[in-house]
This record gives sequence, structure tokens and C-alpha cells, in this order.
Amino acid sequence: MKQRRPVVENILNANDQLAEENRSRLDTAGVYAINLMASPGAGKTSLIEHTIKQLTGKLNLAVVDGDIATSIDADRAKAAGAEAVQINTGGECHLDAIMLQGALNQLQLARIDLLLVENVGNLVCPAAFKLGTHQNVLIASIPDGDDKPYKYPPMYRDVDALVINKIDLLPSIDFNMDYFQRGVQVLNPGLVTFPISCRTGEGLESWLTWLEEGVSGHNPTNNH
Amino acid sequence: MKQRRPVVENILNANDQLAEENRSRLDTAGVYAINLMASPGAGKTSLIEHTIKQLTGKLNLAVVDGDIATSIDADRAKAAGAEAVQINTGGECHLDAIMLQGALNQLQLARIDLLLVENVGNLVCPAAFKLGTHQNVLIASIPDGDDKPYKYPPMYRDVDALVINKIDLLPSIDFNMDYFQRGVQVLNPGLVTFPISCRTGEGLESWLTWLEEGVSGHNPTNNH
Repeated sequence: MKQRRPVVENILNANDQLAEENRSRLDTAGVYAINLMASPGAGKTSLIEHTIKQLTGKLNLAVVDGDIATSIDADRAKAAGAEAVQINTGGECHLDAIMLQGALNQLQLARIDLLLVENVGNLVCPAAFKLGTHQNVLIASIPDGDDKPYKYPPMYRDVDALVINKIDLLPSIDFNMDYFQRGVQVLNPGLVTFPISCRTGEGLESWLTWLEEGVSGHNPTNNH
Repeated sequence: MKQRRPVVENILNANDQLAEENRSRLDTAGVYAINLMASPGAGKTSLIEHTIKQLTGKLNLAVVDGDIATSIDADRAKAAGAEAVQINTGGECHLDAIMLQGALNQLQLARIDLLLVENVGNLVCPAAFKLGTHQNVLIASIPDGDDKPYKYPPMYRDVDALVINKIDLLPSIDFNMDYFQRGVQVLNPGLVTFPISCRTGEGLESWLTWLEEGVSGHNPTNNH
């Protein structure tokens, strides 16, 4: 979806405009929103579950889950204790701003501090569609291999933070972290990076702190 | 890409027509062609490397590698000993029939028995675009999780065979094979399945036999 032929260009412009409307709506309500993107199975839903469990009590969280067919992810988010809205994309390979707009209509935004948006599992298409969130976060995964920044550059180039999940599998897998990080740095110098394991809990502390600081910085007078 | 609005419908019809042209060209030349699809990092390139190394000498192989940016995969296929053509999709999230047509123009088809086409790493979009190959094969991967058939049904529904890679990681990962297989069977009853490990070589024998039988059955008088 990166070759911008005329029709595609118009679609993207319309999307960007709606994304700006989403953003100002979130800002007005004092909601700090994160767009989580990853290939299938990298651990988006697991990271969301851990985040809900750790931050509930400190912050009011909600989740928007994008999937092409089921509501498994929203069910998991609800089970972990957060308000959750499912977007079933009907086969579409990414979320777009109008889908998020529909989901925002179903949430009581004034009650929410932190909104986690789980995009469709796809390492190509979501990069081209802004949603209006404040941060775009990519979750990489050790078993996916150390060549992914080289093979999927648009996704690595456009994100604001990178989570590297499943670091507990490093002893079982040939993954050259230097090679991976060199690829990341070329595309996105100085990118904020969180090596974690949802399985063991390693590294989650820094991720949670980053989110809490984001919420405070976004809306310092937010007291709900 | 599954919601068939009018414009999309026309694009897909044009694609299907070109796919048929590709198919008859392959048949005329006696080439048996496989479309390999998977999420990023599931092991498409590793499986191709093993297949080239094991079947070279018995069959004449060639590889077409689709990637959104680099030529890493074609380089790996060449290093393993096969003729290889790279398709750089320029950001597009899947191969289509016209891209394969361009690649076929660069190969001496009459000299090839088995053509392996490596699609872009994506568990959504490639399912909607036929290429004209004889078999569509999906590579699943243990670390991607046991819920993938439930979350990406179109891909599982439309394939002719399923490879389950990285089974050497089963002891390190929570993966319920029964749950996974139940999801597969609902979508695609009786699907031919090959549990393998490219790392240890386990299970590759059956995969290679299936390919060889496919080549023989496709063109029994093929003697080149």
C-alpha cells in the first residue's frame, strides 16, 4: 500500500484528515492513545494483557482490538480487566481512521486515561494508515528473525517506539541482536526500544514507566 | 483485501485472468509451481533453502522471491544453488499475477521442473490474489501461537497444504497442537499437513516427497 497512485493518494488523504479528527477528540477528552502494530503472533495481545494487569488502579485503561474475523483479543482484554471494543475489519488487512472513529463512539472517552489500540497482525499495511493515536509502537519478536528491519523497512521507519518481545527465547534461537539493532538504527536513529519477555516479565517495568510518563506528560492536570 | 467492492472486484478479475495465463504457460513448459505464503519470520526462505539443497540433482529448481524492499531472499536462494529472480514489490503487501508474469519472463521455463514462489510475509493479503501456481502452501510457525487459524481464517481456508515449522521449539512455548489443528480442520477439512523443523531437519522428508510426487504427477514424461 506504499505506491501512491492517484486513487490511493486520495484515500490516504481522506484517512489522514479523519486521523486528525480522532486526535483532537482524544486530546479534548484527555486520552493518551497508543497504536500497537506487529506481525501475527509477535505478542500484541499478551503485552496488552500485562499492561492492563499492571496499570489498572493507577490509570483507567481501555482497549480497541482490530481483527479480521474473531473477537478473541477483545475477550482477552476484558478478561484482564479493561473496557474493550472489538473492530472486526471484515477481511481488511489494517485498521484505518474511520474504523477507530467507530470504536471511539462506543467508549466513554472522558473516563479513560490510556487507550491501547491493537492493529491487525501485519508487518506491511498498517504502516500506511494513520489512526490519530499519539504513539505508534511496533512489537518485534525474537523468533521472527533478526532480518526483519531490512525486509520490512516502512514499518520500522515510521514508528515512535519498538518493543522486542520473547527475549526469553534468545538462547534457543539464532538471533544476532547487533545485526537487528544496526538495521533499526539506520531506519530510525535513536528509536526508543524495550526488550521484554511477556512470558517471564523481564523488561516490562521500563515499558510501563514509559506509558505512565506519556499519560502524565499528555495531560498533567488529568485527575479522573 | 477481502471486501469486494466494485473496483476491487475488477482488479481481482483482471488478476485471475492473468493467473490463468501464467498457469497455462507453466503447464506448457512442464513447470510445477508452488506459492509459499506465511507471516514474516515463519521460515519461508529457510524452507526454500533446505528444499533446494535436498532436491538439486534430482530436479531442476528455480525460485521467485517477493519482497517489499530487499533482495536478501533471492541472494539466499542463489547461495543454496538455485536460479532465483527477485520481485521487489515497491511496498506492495502481496504478490499478484502480473508480478509473477514479469518474473517468468526472466526464467528459462523449459529447463525448470519445480518453481518455488516466495510471497511477501503477510498472513492476510496474499490469500486474495491468485498467481497461477499449482499449489498454495501456507507455512505456520509454532512461536506465532496456536490461535492463528481462528484469527486469520481466509489464509487457512484457501490453501492446498500446510507446513508447521519450528516444531523444535514446542518444549519452550505454550502451543496447544490440538486446539490449533481443530481450527485448521474446521476451515479446511483434511488439509495435507507437514510438521517440520528447518533447524533440526525433522519432518522435511515428507515435504520433499510430496513435492517430488507433485512434479511427477504434473508431468510424467518430463525428462529434462
